[in-house]
Amino acid sequence: MTDRTNHQVRLAARPHGEPKPGDWAHTSEPVPEPADGELLVRLSHLSLDPAMRGWMNEGRSYIPPVEVNDVMRAAGIGEVVASRHPKFSVGDHVSGVFGVQEYAISDGRGVLAVDLSQVPAPTYLSALGLTGMTAYFGLFDVGAFSDGETVLVSGAAGAVGNMVGQLARLKGGTVVGIAGGPEKCRWLTEEMGFDAALDYREKGLGRRLHQAVPDGVDVFFDNVGGPVLDAGLGALRRGARVVICGAISQYNNLDRPVGPANYLRLLVERARMEGFVIFDYQPRYPEAQSQIAEWLRAGEITSKEHVVHGGVHDFPDTLLKLFRGENTGKLVLALGSEESA
Amino acid sequence: MTDRTNHQVRLAARPHGEPKPGDWAHTSEPVPEPADGELLVRLSHLSLDPAMRGWMNEGRSYIPPVEVNDVMRAAGIGEVVASRHPKFSVGDHVSGVFGVQEYAISDGRGVLAVDLSQVPAPTYLSALGLTGMTAYFGLFDVGAFSDGETVLVSGAAGAVGNMVGQLARLKGGTVVGIAGGPEKCRWLTEEMGFDAALDYREKGLGRRLHQAVPDGVDVFFDNVGGPVLDAGLGALRRGARVVICGAISQYNNLDRPVGPANYLRLLVERARMEGFVIFDYQPRYPEAQSQIAEWLRAGEITSKEHVVHGGVHDFPDTLLKLFRGENTGKLVLALGSEESA
Repeated sequence: MTDRTNHQVRLAARPHGEPKPGDWAHTSEPVPEPADGELLVRLSHLSLDPAMRGWMNEGRSYIPPVEVNDVMRAAGIGEVVASRHPKFSVGDHVSGVFGVQEYAISDGRGVLAVDLSQVPAPTYLSALGLTGMTAYFGLFDVGAFSDGETVLVSGAAGAVGNMVGQLARLKGGTVVGIAGGPEKCRWLTEEMGFDAALDYREKGLGRRLHQAVPDGVDVFFDNVGGPVLDAGLGALRRGARVVICGAISQYNNLDRPVGPANYLRLLVERARMEGFVIFDYQPRYPEAQSQIAEWLRAGEITSKEHVVHGGVHDFPDTLLKLFRGENTGKLVLALGSEESA
Repeated sequence: MTDRTNHQVRLAARPHGEPKPGDWAHTSEPVPEPADGELLVRLSHLSLDPAMRGWMNEGRSYIPPVEVNDVMRAAGIGEVVASRHPKFSVGDHVSGVFGVQEYAISDGRGVLAVDLSQVPAPTYLSALGLTGMTAYFGLFDVGAFSDGETVLVSGAAGAVGNMVGQLARLKGGTVVGIAGGPEKCRWLTEEMGFDAALDYREKGLGRRLHQAVPDGVDVFFDNVGGPVLDAGLGALRRGARVVICGAISQYNNLDRPVGPANYLRLLVERARMEGFVIFDYQPRYPEAQSQIAEWLRAGEITSKEHVVHGGVHDFPDTLLKLFRGENTGKLVLALGSEESA
């Protein structure tokens, strides 16, 4: 086993703004042997998420930052190739936070068995993974969505965004998405069942939003921040809930994120804006997973993934797709044959 | 009766930024006679409130704007000097929204009898008026304050702010105020029982706040907005509630209010920020009033008023005290003998 090489991507420096090639180090080391109580996983799929940008920053947040020189944190799917862990056997497929590398040693904490004969690996990272959990608890718990309400979601063509829209539609909601570019907007309305989709790159987002939902929205699920957040705040209806899930437009801001100048709409509309961290819902993941799995099987929702094939060395470039709006659905890096063994 | 003159202050133009003398018109007209079902009130005290600035702006808000050429809206206390209303008699003292004028005709809607032998008129506009209602429902309902929690309040030397602090102290809370200048801060800690008070005019508010409440705050009651709001967001504890009561630092902003760049602390701390409009609590005013009256009688809280003596023509200058931080406690204009009859 030790004649195999584990290629890794490590954080080399804390980025200023968008992560640059020099912020990463590509390292390799012999694939380690699992100690007693450990398992060795060969990764097949990596989850790429906007939250990763935050993990690269110093300072307290909802999760400790990735330290410089550490392997970059990432959720993934892989196959157990060696095990001295009582719960896992060679050949098992598992999900967990294994990092941006080809092989990972784990003590089994946070590792779950997955059944790839039932569900493709990318879907485990998407609808059945943190993406689905985030959409589900963000919309239903934090957003307190009631059947039939009107939902506005930004980053609507992204992983969480399009799932939020689908869940709200499923529950009889009217769903308006905000996304970048006519192609994504068309996809949202024609394929994802959104009632309307607005391109934030075009002028007059606030005006167009008002035309699309003249009576305002009950829930605004924001993944984007910046001017999009302001536009959404301008469209709140009395008693609305704004779910702060992320702020992808702001993550690479060199200075400080731009705050929502329109926040006094919260006062006028007696509305609330609330943040959440999905890890708090861990005890309730099974509830959401079985519900989402059922909807997937019934064809009531679809898990949309944007799969890029490559090696772990492609991680840095692939990650940038998120910040450039180049993905539609969940961004997954499928580790293929082109990587060196 | 018609040989008496009613002096009035009307909105002459919608102000840009801080209201200027030219934004007001000083008018006079004969004191009118009440028609059937009406009463005539001679005003003795006017309530001056930060919200007045918002009422002067065009456009939809939680209450219709004051129209140009209309008498400026204001709550007040006065004496009934003529009545053809079944509920009110000459000599009664009443509170209501009578406007910035010496005499007001009313149909009795929203008019309440007050007992000046028990409670001085300014207190009816302060602890027992909308000021007290705002502090009470903002802290206990919107802020969901629990006994013993830590509360941060901005505009702490203002009418609502110092009442919020007193109510939280009364319930065993730790209270930190933010105010402008060492004198107000001293007053808060030495006379109002605040645990700490920070002067926002001094540098390093965020750092000093962190020193004052290293474990963070459970409720942040914000009357100020701008950099003070950002500093408070930086001090939130897990699960905190931010009550958006007002934004006096922003009301005169020529362009757009400054948004809280620190709003992503809501996400990190799983916190919520919520606005409210006190009028929604009207059905529950009696509950708050009897509770506050009891605390006042028991000496557990005090109603602090900043009374300016003058005529209605002094209203425009007096109002500016609010935006310049020149008041401590509730700002009241007591209409005295210097006004012309």
